[in-house]
Amino acid sequence: MTERDVVTKLFPDSELRELRPDQWPHPADFAAPPSATQRAAWVEADRSARPGRLAKLRERMAAEGVDGYFGVRWEHMRYLTGLPFDESEVTGSGDTGKFLVGADQVWVIADSRYTIAVKREAPESTLYEANGQLAELWPGLTEAAGVKRVAIEAATIPHLTWERLVAAAPEVELVPIEGWVEAQRQLKEPSELERVAAACAIADRALASLLPSIRPGVTEKELALDLEWRIRTGGADRLAFDVACLAGPEAALPHGSPGDRPVTAGSVLLFDFGAQCAGYRSDMTRTLFVGEPGARDADVYRLVAAAQDIVFERLWEDMSSAQGGTDMPMGRAYDALSRAVIDADGRWPAYGHGLGHGIGLATHELPGLGRRSPEEPLPRRTVFSVEPGIYIEGEMGVRIEDLVVLDVDAGRLDRVTQFPRDLVIVGV
Amino acid sequence: MTERDVVTKLFPDSELRELRPDQWPHPADFAAPPSATQRAAWVEADRSARPGRLAKLRERMAAEGVDGYFGVRWEHMRYLTGLPFDESEVTGSGDTGKFLVGADQVWVIADSRYTIAVKREAPESTLYEANGQLAELWPGLTEAAGVKRVAIEAATIPHLTWERLVAAAPEVELVPIEGWVEAQRQLKEPSELERVAAACAIADRALASLLPSIRPGVTEKELALDLEWRIRTGGADRLAFDVACLAGPEAALPHGSPGDRPVTAGSVLLFDFGAQCAGYRSDMTRTLFVGEPGARDADVYRLVAAAQDIVFERLWEDMSSAQGGTDMPMGRAYDALSRAVIDADGRWPAYGHGLGHGIGLATHELPGLGRRSPEEPLPRRTVFSVEPGIYIEGEMGVRIEDLVVLDVDAGRLDRVTQFPRDLVIVGV
Repeated sequence: MTERDVVTKLFPDSELRELRPDQWPHPADFAAPPSATQRAAWVEADRSARPGRLAKLRERMAAEGVDGYFGVRWEHMRYLTGLPFDESEVTGSGDTGKFLVGADQVWVIADSRYTIAVKREAPESTLYEANGQLAELWPGLTEAAGVKRVAIEAATIPHLTWERLVAAAPEVELVPIEGWVEAQRQLKEPSELERVAAACAIADRALASLLPSIRPGVTEKELALDLEWRIRTGGADRLAFDVACLAGPEAALPHGSPGDRPVTAGSVLLFDFGAQCAGYRSDMTRTLFVGEPGARDADVYRLVAAAQDIVFERLWEDMSSAQGGTDMPMGRAYDALSRAVIDADGRWPAYGHGLGHGIGLATHELPGLGRRSPEEPLPRRTVFSVEPGIYIEGEMGVRIEDLVVLDVDAGRLDRVTQFPRDLVIVGV
Repeated sequence: MTERDVVTKLFPDSELRELRPDQWPHPADFAAPPSATQRAAWVEADRSARPGRLAKLRERMAAEGVDGYFGVRWEHMRYLTGLPFDESEVTGSGDTGKFLVGADQVWVIADSRYTIAVKREAPESTLYEANGQLAELWPGLTEAAGVKRVAIEAATIPHLTWERLVAAAPEVELVPIEGWVEAQRQLKEPSELERVAAACAIADRALASLLPSIRPGVTEKELALDLEWRIRTGGADRLAFDVACLAGPEAALPHGSPGDRPVTAGSVLLFDFGAQCAGYRSDMTRTLFVGEPGARDADVYRLVAAAQDIVFERLWEDMSSAQGGTDMPMGRAYDALSRAVIDADGRWPAYGHGLGHGIGLATHELPGLGRRSPEEPLPRRTVFSVEPGIYIEGEMGVRIEDLVVLDVDAGRLDRVTQFPRDLVIVGV
């Protein structure tokens, strides 16, 4: 394939067009929300996958010389046990969901409020009822599991909890670890990729349905809430994160929040948002034009798109090479490549954030595609964002963010965010 | 005052009535959302209060023999520095907002994405720009602050972070602490109480406006989303937590989530929800009756209300005694009292959760009113929930939750949740 062919594969309209109302995408252009049958199939797929996920973790445990693994992160609870907590439920649920992997069993802690939920949602695990503090039950739990040397997610467990566990059962050695399950989770199963794609489609549809509502005078907050409503009544279980809607100069703040600022004609309007579908997330950014784009703003937009294109082109080449059995490059290589396009142009500064991040049960997970991302190859089957941007402080900002599925051995490189990347002109 | 008088003060309609549509509360019965002027006054009140909050913390530091305090909890960032993060922003913001209190200054860490926000929102603090990991900047930060013995919020900081800080600056001693700022925050300032009351009024109005929409056939999820919409378009900055809407037997799960279950006539419908207003939260539960209440269900309801009444009566007595200068009782005393009313009746089991909790920047904070709450007196000016319940597994549940402001020295005991506690009959 030529470079142009690759971009055309990912973006059928690679020559960026200006899309006015009669050319806008329609909600029906994107996949419908998943049926109940589809959702049930995903529950089943997780159930079938969990023994393999645990076997892989136990291989790592054996290799590292521990006989137990104590997990406290909500993503890991969900991935390894099935308990469908998300981050919003962690604060209130105490120690419920924390789990101990032993040689043959997995124990899941639940207090009295959650025992029914754990029995229902984590059926292969053994319920360990807790009425008090974690440290009080630690000696009994580790004895039941027969573990003496336990890996603990030390980047998450509070220091005080660690100290209390040591004091409660001094004969059980704690080994601080991080990243074991994160490393597993970046290699995605097919049913996980399906759910990310379904979450993308829900987000695509929601934005398409919102376009007619964008008018000068409506505020960022109103639009953010309107878009959120469309996502949540359009098949999502939840948002992936709070909707960002930033008008004009505010779009130059990569992490701004919607305010009472009205949309004005002749400026950009940036939406960064995502859906959750059956636990998996999407994340997309589109920068729209309110009224006719000014020449400078359109140039910025085209440059950001070019900084995406080069990543897709290189990913395609690298995937083709990797099909021979070699590793994919590190994520940071793509960050450098994309940034170089903006730097070479020289008119505006390249983005200060990273080029992209993996996504799945969490909005940000491995692999990383930033300047400081881990020095390891991209996984062979994964999904991540590609989101270069240009921010001109006090004036405007453009970011374009798409999720891409890479499956080296299937020869697959797909953009799963399907909303067009053209210059979408609204409010006219 | 007689006991009846006390209850009448808190609940003007203390004889529980059955409220049918023509007697329902109306949104206009409750305070309107705060004006921009009011909101600006609260920002100013916080700004004026922060030096005093910090002085109090420094007194504690001096008493405990430390010269620095390193804070990592979002509530504490907000309380002591002004940076208005809430828990949903913590995951993505890295180390931004973590702060070090020294003898004269407060340093607030921010990475490049947040420097503008920190300068704007934490104006009395010194910005400490961070480009890398916390451990990398720790030696420079502690040196700039001139601190050698630093208290750290050990119940929150991850163990791995702790270990890395120790390794990065072995000459700086870390002292694990918990609860210092929590203890300060439970004693509320008047402007904090105003914001909790404003959040209550937003929630009260939202539920009043929802009543006509509750019909057999509508699902829990639909009603939860509808109520959320009314809260968020009715003056709230955010929800305090996800809306619980539980129909019939589901109401027996104190921590259930709304599902696709339809509301049915002849059953209860429980809403547990709260708003955020200018950073402060509300939390209320109402159990409504869909159609005419059955005799058993009405009896359960009246018993739960009686288990609340005895708490209000005792609080009034204890407040009167405490005005003489003695301490208020411990929160756990009220839990025992309320539980005893249900146990003495003997027909149904008392709630398994605690009677109540403090509320403010966080939904759950000190003081505690549960069986295992701290053995210390209630603060003299505070706000907390009183939420007894009865749960009959597989059949129904009733919880009634009101927020109460206690100000001993002003002789004030007010229910700030103002939605009536009567038997509200909907869907007829």
